Amino acid sequence: MTSAYQKMLALWGEVSDLDNANSVLRWDQETYMPAKGATARGKIISTLTGMRHAKLNALELRAAIDDALTEVEEGSVEHAQVLRAQKKVNEANCIPADLATAIAEAESNGLVAWQNARKESDFSLFESQLTELVKLNREKAAALDPDSPAYDVMLNLYEEGVTEAQLVPIFDELRSELAPLIKAANATAPVDESCAIGNFSADAQRDFAMLIAKKIGYDTEAGRLDKTTHPFCTTFGAGDVRITWRWLDDDFRSGLSGVMHEAGHALYEQGFSSDLARTPLFNATGLGMHESQSRLWENMVGRSAGFWEWAMPHFRTAFPEQAHCSVEQMVKAQNTSRPSLIRVEADEATYNLHVAVRFEIERKLFSNQVEVGDLPELWDNTYSELLGVNADNVADGVLQDIHWAMGAFGYFPTYSLGNIICAQLYKAAEAELGDLQASFSKGEFAPLLGWLRSNIHQHGNRYSTFELLKRATGEELCAGPLLKHLKDRVSSAYGL
Amino acid sequence: MTSAYQKMLALWGEVSDLDNANSVLRWDQETYMPAKGATARGKIISTLTGMRHAKLNALELRAAIDDALTEVEEGSVEHAQVLRAQKKVNEANCIPADLATAIAEAESNGLVAWQNARKESDFSLFESQLTELVKLNREKAAALDPDSPAYDVMLNLYEEGVTEAQLVPIFDELRSELAPLIKAANATAPVDESCAIGNFSADAQRDFAMLIAKKIGYDTEAGRLDKTTHPFCTTFGAGDVRITWRWLDDDFRSGLSGVMHEAGHALYEQGFSSDLARTPLFNATGLGMHESQSRLWENMVGRSAGFWEWAMPHFRTAFPEQAHCSVEQMVKAQNTSRPSLIRVEADEATYNLHVAVRFEIERKLFSNQVEVGDLPELWDNTYSELLGVNADNVADGVLQDIHWAMGAFGYFPTYSLGNIICAQLYKAAEAELGDLQASFSKGEFAPLLGWLRSNIHQHGNRYSTFELLKRATGEELCAGPLLKHLKDRVSSAYGL
Repeated sequence: MTSAYQKMLALWGEVSDLDNANSVLRWDQETYMPAKGATARGKIISTLTGMRHAKLNALELRAAIDDALTEVEEGSVEHAQVLRAQKKVNEANCIPADLATAIAEAESNGLVAWQNARKESDFSLFESQLTELVKLNREKAAALDPDSPAYDVMLNLYEEGVTEAQLVPIFDELRSELAPLIKAANATAPVDESCAIGNFSADAQRDFAMLIAKKIGYDTEAGRLDKTTHPFCTTFGAGDVRITWRWLDDDFRSGLSGVMHEAGHALYEQGFSSDLARTPLFNATGLGMHESQSRLWENMVGRSAGFWEWAMPHFRTAFPEQAHCSVEQMVKAQNTSRPSLIRVEADEATYNLHVAVRFEIERKLFSNQVEVGDLPELWDNTYSELLGVNADNVADGVLQDIHWAMGAFGYFPTYSLGNIICAQLYKAAEAELGDLQASFSKGEFAPLLGWLRSNIHQHGNRYSTFELLKRATGEELCAGPLLKHLKDRVSSAYGL
Repeated sequence: MTSAYQKMLALWGEVSDLDNANSVLRWDQETYMPAKGATARGKIISTLTGMRHAKLNALELRAAIDDALTEVEEGSVEHAQVLRAQKKVNEANCIPADLATAIAEAESNGLVAWQNARKESDFSLFESQLTELVKLNREKAAALDPDSPAYDVMLNLYEEGVTEAQLVPIFDELRSELAPLIKAANATAPVDESCAIGNFSADAQRDFAMLIAKKIGYDTEAGRLDKTTHPFCTTFGAGDVRITWRWLDDDFRSGLSGVMHEAGHALYEQGFSSDLARTPLFNATGLGMHESQSRLWENMVGRSAGFWEWAMPHFRTAFPEQAHCSVEQMVKAQNTSRPSLIRVEADEATYNLHVAVRFEIERKLFSNQVEVGDLPELWDNTYSELLGVNADNVADGVLQDIHWAMGAFGYFPTYSLGNIICAQLYKAAEAELGDLQASFSKGEFAPLLGWLRSNIHQHGNRYSTFELLKRATGEELCAGPLLKHLKDRVSSAYGL
């Protein structure tokens, strides 16, 4: 390629290095940083963030992008690189500096107020901060795209191209199909979960989970597992994609499904083409696609009968006291379904209803149908309606999630997008590769990973989630495969 | 203070944040980074290093320094801040960019060639790279200070104000006084080391070493211990000063003395006045002073009779199989002295002769008395003369240290400066505080730490090592206290 394109890549490499440096700093903050290091760390991250912003705003980069655009061939990967860089630069440039500062401050205040309100279980302690966050994010939406509805702009921060209008019928379908399923399961006797309950040492859980993670393809020479309060996956550039976990001593499912979930995210990022390192395209395309990768390995694979046929002997070796458990028992214990209060503890089927509650509230909030002050009541009413349960305090109700306190509106729907997309991808992979359950039962996960690598991972963010989905499956977004999958799973577990 | 000074501090804060970010990146590289992360990490560090250099070279900073210099009162801490910033900026500016690039490249080539030459035990594989490094460092010395001898400029990179002329008589004194002592010890029966030899689990060694580190004052809420191939201490800003270690399974002394050594470095950096955070003065004053702090806790304290009177019951609890050992046995086992080949494994007394060998060679090299090709023979001859031992291969001889391969000439003498200074400081502290051994035997280390905090640590690099030594002890640099200390120790261990 010619020189403006190369110059753009060189400048972008520095932006990427600053991002990666900040990721290392944040990872360390969550894993190993001593308590008294917090103040200094905040300064370092803030300085690097400021430098990143300056690099993105630099005239030099904008000029290189403009010039490069005249050089590259439409439809080429180079073209995609330049467009992606241009989009990021434009986004960074169209938020006025004083708004960006006000948002950063409101997020910081929001987090503190939320933590306090949650501790006191008193929504009023968070109300004015949340009101401010909604107001500032409306302004942000107007700055980013004055011609689109604010909530659509928010949604697009996390998933390019998604609209409220597109999601409404999908969530309607999820609600109407899942409610009777969950109700039917709830009317039957509970599943026997004894094979998942016991006394599991952290070391044994870790070793078992990592045996699985490596088996499905997570490269530990390009990653590692550490302990954190909230599990996550983070990437420091090609060749260093780390995951974290937590565990329960008395139920091994939480730790294992967490590791498989984060390993799924990590497989995506380990799968970016190494040619893309330090370029605008070395990124996941959107949170929905990212979540589809974690959910695919956590749920479609990790709770399936084929998987447990292979995994059960390893489980019995890891936890000899559970040696009496059968594959059938284990698969049922992996697919329980009961309405619950807390999203992060929800099972695969009810999870989407927790998301539906939040989608419903967010879109009403951003279209001025409700005020922040109405949220606690609206929350409880919607939970009653969709899940038939209700928290007796706001800490377990409207205050349970950190997202709004961080100014993340429009983020929640990506969780269900992930579930929907992973079922579509799984179906398409199976159509091409043949019976995946039969492969899993023999410990063969490479065909599925290979299919994902070639159809999804390698491209980075060259295509949007919906383009990539179309290319990989031939389909638009549709809830059918997820609903079929959940009906099969729940029916099988509860003998419906 | 007025605005130019504040502006200088704000700009310096960014330089400091970049330094701290790089320190985190390097720490992670040595502790937790997976193998395949190396390439990406190199790019991140290189980008941040370039940004740091640009910040130091920025006209904005130079102007702020010049303006601030007219504002601050001579002799004030603000004045010291500005002078320190000015010195760093000048240093960064007077190396021409092409020379800096050539040096970075030569260091990189040097490291690779050194590793290879060491593996093959063949000096010729490293000779041309080392010749290049010497040549470029001579050019660097001329760029930094054309009026001073090159080796003095090299020495001053690590310890401000030290000269070859000052060191020659000191090393002469060390050589002439230590040689007969070591010879006399060598003529007697070996010390009984059985209380230090056995089977020590890594966990038990770690717990015991950290019990000691905390007891002497290392704040683990502002630090932590991790495992690395080569132990070090690193600081990520106020409140985060980490140390690393390694250990031997069959001899606990290596792990413990390593932790006490690094904790000594860490106590220095944890002791900088918090007012200095992110300023030019938030740094150790020189490597000799830094090493004096590590050596003080490792040797003056950690191998002393008073210390072991207190520590022995904890040792017996940590290692019940060694419960039979007496304090007397342990103190002797901590103070063995035998000529050996490898510097990093040398005991407290012979260590200075290993340094003397290197000082002798470096000064001949930089005054053109020898060529790089002469080094293997010169090395062996000098070891024969000073220590009476000789390696049968260059890997354990002239190739044993990494320093020259990294272009670090003039660094070695700071190890002996550290030994000399710590004995002077210990003597001065004892003159003020009374019998320190009596304090140690009661587990009281706070008086000594308090004295160091107030006389040394809090100042950061406001004063040079020699100024600080003079302020704290009233003395110039002198080897007398170290020699007296070593004679007492060795005589006592060997019954001389």
